[in-house]
Amino acid sequence: MHTQDPSGRAQGPLYVRVAGTFETQIQNRSLKPGDKLPSVRELSRRLGISTATVVAAYGRLERHGAIVPRPKSGYYVAARCPRAPEPRTETRPRPPTRVAIGDIVLEIQKTARDRHMIPFGEAVITPELLPAARLNRSVRMAAAAFPQHATTYEAPAGNPRLRRQIARLAYRLSCTFAPEDVIVTNGAIEALNLAVRAVASPGDVVGVESPVCYEILQALESFGLKALEITSRPRLGPDPVELERAFRKHKIKCFLMSGSCQNPLGTILPDATKAGIVALAKQLRLPIIEDDSFGDVAFSPQRPRPLKSFDKTGGVLYCASYSHIVAPGFHLGWVHAGRFRARVEALKGITTATTPSLPQIALSEFLESGAYERHLRKLNDVLFQSTRTLGAAVAQHFPKGTRTTVPDGGFFLWVQLPRRLSGLKLYQAALEEGIAIVPGMIFSAHKHFRDCVRLSCGWRWSDQAEGAVKKLGQLAERLLHSKG
Amino acid sequence: MHTQDPSGRAQGPLYVRVAGTFETQIQNRSLKPGDKLPSVRELSRRLGISTATVVAAYGRLERHGAIVPRPKSGYYVAARCPRAPEPRTETRPRPPTRVAIGDIVLEIQKTARDRHMIPFGEAVITPELLPAARLNRSVRMAAAAFPQHATTYEAPAGNPRLRRQIARLAYRLSCTFAPEDVIVTNGAIEALNLAVRAVASPGDVVGVESPVCYEILQALESFGLKALEITSRPRLGPDPVELERAFRKHKIKCFLMSGSCQNPLGTILPDATKAGIVALAKQLRLPIIEDDSFGDVAFSPQRPRPLKSFDKTGGVLYCASYSHIVAPGFHLGWVHAGRFRARVEALKGITTATTPSLPQIALSEFLESGAYERHLRKLNDVLFQSTRTLGAAVAQHFPKGTRTTVPDGGFFLWVQLPRRLSGLKLYQAALEEGIAIVPGMIFSAHKHFRDCVRLSCGWRWSDQAEGAVKKLGQLAERLLHSKG
Repeated sequence: MHTQDPSGRAQGPLYVRVAGTFETQIQNRSLKPGDKLPSVRELSRRLGISTATVVAAYGRLERHGAIVPRPKSGYYVAARCPRAPEPRTETRPRPPTRVAIGDIVLEIQKTARDRHMIPFGEAVITPELLPAARLNRSVRMAAAAFPQHATTYEAPAGNPRLRRQIARLAYRLSCTFAPEDVIVTNGAIEALNLAVRAVASPGDVVGVESPVCYEILQALESFGLKALEITSRPRLGPDPVELERAFRKHKIKCFLMSGSCQNPLGTILPDATKAGIVALAKQLRLPIIEDDSFGDVAFSPQRPRPLKSFDKTGGVLYCASYSHIVAPGFHLGWVHAGRFRARVEALKGITTATTPSLPQIALSEFLESGAYERHLRKLNDVLFQSTRTLGAAVAQHFPKGTRTTVPDGGFFLWVQLPRRLSGLKLYQAALEEGIAIVPGMIFSAHKHFRDCVRLSCGWRWSDQAEGAVKKLGQLAERLLHSKG
Repeated sequence: MHTQDPSGRAQGPLYVRVAGTFETQIQNRSLKPGDKLPSVRELSRRLGISTATVVAAYGRLERHGAIVPRPKSGYYVAARCPRAPEPRTETRPRPPTRVAIGDIVLEIQKTARDRHMIPFGEAVITPELLPAARLNRSVRMAAAAFPQHATTYEAPAGNPRLRRQIARLAYRLSCTFAPEDVIVTNGAIEALNLAVRAVASPGDVVGVESPVCYEILQALESFGLKALEITSRPRLGPDPVELERAFRKHKIKCFLMSGSCQNPLGTILPDATKAGIVALAKQLRLPIIEDDSFGDVAFSPQRPRPLKSFDKTGGVLYCASYSHIVAPGFHLGWVHAGRFRARVEALKGITTATTPSLPQIALSEFLESGAYERHLRKLNDVLFQSTRTLGAAVAQHFPKGTRTTVPDGGFFLWVQLPRRLSGLKLYQAALEEGIAIVPGMIFSAHKHFRDCVRLSCGWRWSDQAEGAVKKLGQLAERLLHSKG
């Protein structure tokens, strides 16, 4: 039984690691629904750990819905939730294209942000799941410790204390780097913008996954860049053969991708795939821009390794964020730009000069205290639960033939509707019912994925959510019907 | 005697307005050095105000170095400080050019930011002149009033309360606009970047003043834009004839300029000139991007009107900041983009999504309290004093033939060295002596102004500063000598 990550370091408290091992076994089918787990006493003896730890591990698995207790008998692997088959993402390869999705995305974003809608739209975690009081304490401590915070320009590359904390936490990423490698940004979005501008100029081609989150397509559009889309498959990511063919055939300036908890597919690529992509890019001297915005909200027992951890030549521009996951109001991200550091730092200076000071000092305090890791453990339990429940609800309520991902992390479900039903039509019908979702077509510059929608669930599952999924299913049925 | 601003509204406490009237008369030579001012009792009777108010007004004028008391005689207009003649900025018109000043600017910025140098380089106000304690109080109040600030995404266009405050204070600008017109940014630099991108695409030509601050040239360079430089003269700004010829001859996408306290010349354009430029631009349907970063630190009794106040058709994209002047650590700016609002708002969403929340709420509180206006009154007294003293020191210590501006506001002095002495060489020699200055050549894409330097003085004058100016003068003498 392995409770260590690939880099050989144990992570998280023991009970979480024990639970994680079982989760992995359930995911890879070494344990099947109905299988009996060892008794508490037996497992305690076998692993040489306390019974309290085993009880805590089983409790966690039970909360995740992975196992169920049967009175006077023990714990069993849960009957699998109803689950739809996987969506198909394969599309005929297409030449690079200018991106032009701007106007419709703005419209859809507006809907997604509307606080009166049932929020399956926006990729945002509800404030109720975030540690407001603890962050406020960090703010108070920061303001007291640095009373000059408001009247001094922060260093352009970021507050030194925060850069040090980010470098310290690099062990979680199986990376080692220095504080000077970190450039603090206004969220991951600024990090990605700077990274793209560092390697590509207007008219150039940038390789992206397909589907890819629309924020990235918007950025490419705003800089007059072209997108070359490379099919990304649920659980597997980009096909290595297609990737290599595309890299060799087209003159692309970089490949922009997520190795972990990709938005919208929720995929965590196997380490071997990540290593292979980094090796290929290195061989072709092609920079990779890695968007790791959601890598910290993985359902795996260990924090997945980013592509960056396989990069030995500074070819990966790694972008991450504390904004989505813990403190949207601080809006802090960062980039480790590898051999493009000087260029990215200069661009940061030119476009926003510096990042506000107080949120950076407060986040430093928060990270130093260990509160971030504690927050993640709680948060990921809830997101796992919500995402799985959402998947089950869609499988139950949507028309026959609907396909969904089973995300490895994040809080998105990618749903493929049956019989080429239009995601945009479902989006419009849902709008009328006060439910926000996002149509699939805006996840592609070619407007592929017209029969898809993305559903987000960065919040605790509720009866209202269940009712909304049921309503969405009815709307889809009705649209299918009217289609004849 | 007029104590009202052009829009007919009285501004500031009465004693400041009384003092301001005399300042204007001294500036426009209605009062000359040696002229006697009315006695306290006489002025009190003439204006129907208390003697205390007159004493306060005269005290202010004395602190400004504008008048001097003679015992048992009264107050007299001060003998003028030694003052060098004005620099020449006229250059032969040149065609638009791609901007390429990046690398040398980065080097110079690094020097300018070095805390160990005597700081005539960076365009920054020293923290000692900024209200750290009051701002910290605003932070505490903001955090207490909105404990969810850290865990909620701020609205992309900015915090509603801050936008309301900025709209409320528009009366100071002789403008009227709605909170929805305001888009909050990460400092004026982001505002300017967004404004430029809203109206111009890579390869396009943007009109700029010459000299122009290098941050703007850097932004143009980073977006692959060309610059058309139009001579800007101390006290007068761009020549209307040259301006019209340039606007008509070249296909430019916008004209980017400062109407008030221009960096580096410190010019406040006469209202008629501002109105004329706005009218011309309107006629040619040419957008104007107005950089009003330093308009609040004017030495005139009234806050100067921006070009925006003459704009009735939404053609002016107005960019301003609370960063330079009061809270660098908050790093907040804003843009009123006129008819380009939707485009600028979309670009803001794409490049940095939102601006951190807590600094915005804290700044709202600060503005509501009236503390900003109180801060400005104190600050401007000091900056006026420092800038005038710097001018006198340069006139005294620099080689014969040196020319300097007499800024209307801001905290910069533009210095033209005699006999084509290289500003870059003086910069390098000063560096060796631990003194940071900025060479003139980086204020032009054509590298005009090779015989100029900019000296900043956003701090209280000191013996050390006096010594440094003397040292700079000696270095300049030595360079002139070695030149033969």
